[in-house]
Amino acid sequence: MKTYDKIIKAIEKNNSMLCIGLDSDINKIPHFVRNVPGGMLLFNQSIIESTRDLVCAYKINFAFYERYGIDGCDILHKTIESIPNDIVIIADAKRGDIGNTSNFYATAAFNRFGSDAVTVNPYMGRDSVEPFLRNEEKMTFLLALTSNPGSADFQKLESEGKPIYMHVVEKSLRWADHRKLGYVVGATHPEELARVRSQAKDNVLLIPGIGTQGGDAEAILRANAGGPAIVNVSRSIIFASENADFAEQARRRAIEFKKLLSV
Amino acid sequence: MKTYDKIIKAIEKNNSMLCIGLDSDINKIPHFVRNVPGGMLLFNQSIIESTRDLVCAYKINFAFYERYGIDGCDILHKTIESIPNDIVIIADAKRGDIGNTSNFYATAAFNRFGSDAVTVNPYMGRDSVEPFLRNEEKMTFLLALTSNPGSADFQKLESEGKPIYMHVVEKSLRWADHRKLGYVVGATHPEELARVRSQAKDNVLLIPGIGTQGGDAEAILRANAGGPAIVNVSRSIIFASENADFAEQARRRAIEFKKLLSV
Repeated sequence: MKTYDKIIKAIEKNNSMLCIGLDSDINKIPHFVRNVPGGMLLFNQSIIESTRDLVCAYKINFAFYERYGIDGCDILHKTIESIPNDIVIIADAKRGDIGNTSNFYATAAFNRFGSDAVTVNPYMGRDSVEPFLRNEEKMTFLLALTSNPGSADFQKLESEGKPIYMHVVEKSLRWADHRKLGYVVGATHPEELARVRSQAKDNVLLIPGIGTQGGDAEAILRANAGGPAIVNVSRSIIFASENADFAEQARRRAIEFKKLLSV
Repeated sequence: MKTYDKIIKAIEKNNSMLCIGLDSDINKIPHFVRNVPGGMLLFNQSIIESTRDLVCAYKINFAFYERYGIDGCDILHKTIESIPNDIVIIADAKRGDIGNTSNFYATAAFNRFGSDAVTVNPYMGRDSVEPFLRNEEKMTFLLALTSNPGSADFQKLESEGKPIYMHVVEKSLRWADHRKLGYVVGATHPEELARVRSQAKDNVLLIPGIGTQGGDAEAILRANAGGPAIVNVSRSIIFASENADFAEQARRRAIEFKKLLSV
């Protein structure tokens, strides 16, 4: 099934726009899991098992795995294999390189790791993004306006009467249709999100920054105006407890967020 | 030794600003190496062995390794171990993420893989770059103006009287001194390179795009005005021959480029 259809179905099936980010920092996962071999994988599998009926997607940030080299690569593989088939897997890799090289990042994210979608950095322009868009089944989420403070440094600079992130959106809308291309817009910018949505009416928005980063779910949903959206929460859910009940507490938190993010 | 000093010494020792990019696409390396186990590693080691006295650095683009998952990760490790201690290792990873996540990319590039320097994408702004700059020994090369056609899409947009890539340079010059921060400027843009150099007088420029991509070495050196620079050539050297003499032919090509890129 095409990723776009899988997203729409997963949101409907679980009545949830919630995506859980498996940012499984080994220093923050409970001690008793941290100190066993394969603890990080066990942690991920426990979180997936206890939340799989509450989400439409899991987002896996590659940085948390890449830092462990070969071992991390193995945990990443096995985590992805643990995600149910009807839930969307987003490789949050923020890759991008010149054309012939981006090809290989696309191969890595889509084929090697088997993700349904990948996040891509737009800075290098069209030929750095197209290799990802060439895959007819999968989806690419282009970084438009990110949730962090540094998003003001370059993304919000104005050029020809509009900010750079709107240049990214408006230009890239011509590169692929909404079934292949979505945008990352941080939950910390509801007004700007409304502006992106006004141009990208049918594109899926991937919205991080709810929870620890302070984004407000209600404001975001208003700004999103009913378009297709995946709202990511990481730390507030997965690190809900440091004790043996961590998976149970993660579920409890996920239920709270799901209520905010029902269709 | 700090990377900055290592760069200056390596350029002097081999009288060369040449960097060879180990973009070892398995489909382009000679058949007889391609079809043996560990062929890609053997290819890299042969290229390194036959060119190590001609270069100041090797640049390793992570995409070519990441596409093979765990196996690629292993080849990447072993390739890096095969590079002589006095030659600079640049991890061309083009990473970047929100602050707490960029930390882990920095750990991966600098500690896990043991590279001396890493390329970083500036789109997400200051807090996405600072975790790399926090390492007192290593260097970060921020993408300013890349060599590919897509560099015109966003990097060259004008804002407040100057293009985005100059915003990247001028803003980031305040984030770290020249011993920790350099810039990637494509050899396909000599005029713009002169403009970057006029602001970043002491920063090392990492200049890809000579060779297959069409950049002109002489124009680049004029524009660089004698500043510290590393000029990368990948395909034109490493794929000089498809036959058993591939390492010898790579050496022959590297000698030609080295002549253009002597100090």
